[in-house]
Amino acid sequence: MAWQARDPAFVERVRTSFERQRFMGTLGARLGHVAAGEVDIELPVADALTQQHGFVHAGIVSAIVDTAGGYAGFSLFPANASVLTVEFKVNLLAPAEGERIVAEGFVVKPGRTLCITRGEVHALRGDKRKLVAVMQQTLMVMHGKEDA
Amino acid sequence: MAWQARDPAFVERVRTSFERQRFMGTLGARLGHVAAGEVDIELPVADALTQQHGFVHAGIVSAIVDTAGGYAGFSLFPANASVLTVEFKVNLLAPAEGERIVAEGFVVKPGRTLCITRGEVHALRGDKRKLVAVMQQTLMVMHGKEDA
Amino acid sequence: MAWQARDPAFVERVRTSFERQRFMGTLGARLGHVAAGEVDIELPVADALTQQHGFVHAGIVSAIVDTAGGYAGFSLFPANASVLTVEFKVNLLAPAEGERIVAEGFVVKPGRTLCITRGEVHALRGDKRKLVAVMQQTLMVMHGKEDA
Amino acid sequence: MAWQARDPAFVERVRTSFERQRFMGTLGARLGHVAAGEVDIELPVADALTQQHGFVHAGIVSAIVDTAGGYAGFSLFPANASVLTVEFKVNLLAPAEGERIVAEGFVVKPGRTLCITRGEVHALRGDKRKLVAVMQQTLMVMHGKEDA
Repeated sequence: MAWQARDPAFVERVRTSFERQRFMGTLGARLGHVAAGEVDIELPVADALTQQHGFVHAGIVSAIVDTAGGYAGFSLFPANASVLTVEFKVNLLAPAEGERIVAEGFVVKPGRTLCITRGEVHALRGDKRKLVAVMQQTLMVMHGKEDA
Repeated sequence: MAWQARDPAFVERVRTSFERQRFMGTLGARLGHVAAGEVDIELPVADALTQQHGFVHAGIVSAIVDTAGGYAGFSLFPANASVLTVEFKVNLLAPAEGERIVAEGFVVKPGRTLCITRGEVHALRGDKRKLVAVMQQTLMVMHGKEDA
Repeated sequence: MAWQARDPAFVERVRTSFERQRFMGTLGARLGHVAAGEVDIELPVADALTQQHGFVHAGIVSAIVDTAGGYAGFSLFPANASVLTVEFKVNLLAPAEGERIVAEGFVVKPGRTLCITRGEVHALRGDKRKLVAVMQQTLMVMHGKEDA
Repeated sequence: MAWQARDPAFVERVRTSFERQRFMGTLGARLGHVAAGEVDIELPVADALTQQHGFVHAGIVSAIVDTAGGYAGFSLFPANASVLTVEFKVNLLAPAEGERIVAEGFVVKPGRTLCITRGEVHALRGDKRKLVAVMQQTLMVMHGKEDA
């Protein structure tokens, strides 16, 4: 589905907001592809991010796909609105192992007050790509609360 | 609801597994109360954990309540089983701000193959305590796959 | 948690709205206990409501707990607002079999725009009561859209 | 994603099981397209199915998309296994109004014990088609429990 952004400067607005997320820096996550209603986040796998079996922690998989969905929605918001995650649900399909993991968020239904998104997370090793999680999310548009 | 653990050494088993979760150490999270079917995780708030508005990142709130629910279930598993999060859903009710946040996981229905839990996250400042998230989760019992 | 209703006529308002739900009548569901932030719905089990194994269909269990949660929230809304389910998630814990099933909805967090609830469904046979489902739900307060 | 059914008689197996769901008959729902990992269910809109504002009840939208997802998974199961919904989450995007509503279920990840699906519900009026709900679901494969 191709969406139309209302704020022509949405790419810059997404990047600036992402940079202010100290936790994404703590994880080592980077913003990837940014388009109207679509945002990717990439995370190099590291020992500091593992759970008890040596895979990337489910909480991190969830955190980056929540963030990817949130910015996918935010990309379609008006310039003076910020974003809040109301709720999300994630299914973890396979262990997150490999060289890096990539979370993709995309808008399903943009609305004036609420925005619904979906997300997928893949683990990558060499040229192999495995689906490790799927997400469904509800965002709130905070009108008049500029993000910065 | 009071549950009965099958493994008398469950507290030690939970603590040992938690210690192996590198990511919990990266966050600075500590295991709190551990009982049969109930586990708390405490997290001191720090700048490195924030999102763009200075609150604790929703992804961290989700990560610690997923972990608390996971160990609540794991506390009831037989000694030679490990735990996997199948899926969880979290509602974020208020900004996670304060001195520390505490996630509580508790078992709703233990089963042979699946275990259903719920969770709550509170933010604490001085003697004030605010509910910031609620969670519902499905775990899988991995029989014959010892955790270590 | 004890909530305070803003509309003193909330019990009547909930009952009147429930009566207008043709589908609840089709199922044979009845409104039970109605208090501020708490609503029960009772359903006598009938052959017309079964799935392929003879239990009450998971979709009905979901429908009545969604409705119970919705009216639990609605009971706290101002008189000139109606209710919309944004989303819900339900875990089905055991087969819904017995003489009747009862869904309980209760408010977790009332808000100006959104209201978060939880729900439980029990199956009853004689004096036995079994938990068959748990739910977590997000409602929207439709201000200025009277229900009738 | 194209999946491969293990039971060559899966279409017949899905249709027979659906026919035994008394509740689908009560609603007036019909099985539509059935392929490996993909099942549609169609429901003509009727007064008996409405909520308080005259739209199709959210509980019915949920019930038919839960059922579509369940049979999408079941189509890939071995011949001697039946299906159980572990949990599902549904976002309701727009009022379900029109001449009929169609729920589509499709498998995201088939597994030995669990099967993850997604679903969409559209409302149709004439040649107009509107997305009214999206779902994410976890099913359990009940090996050795033939459906009939």
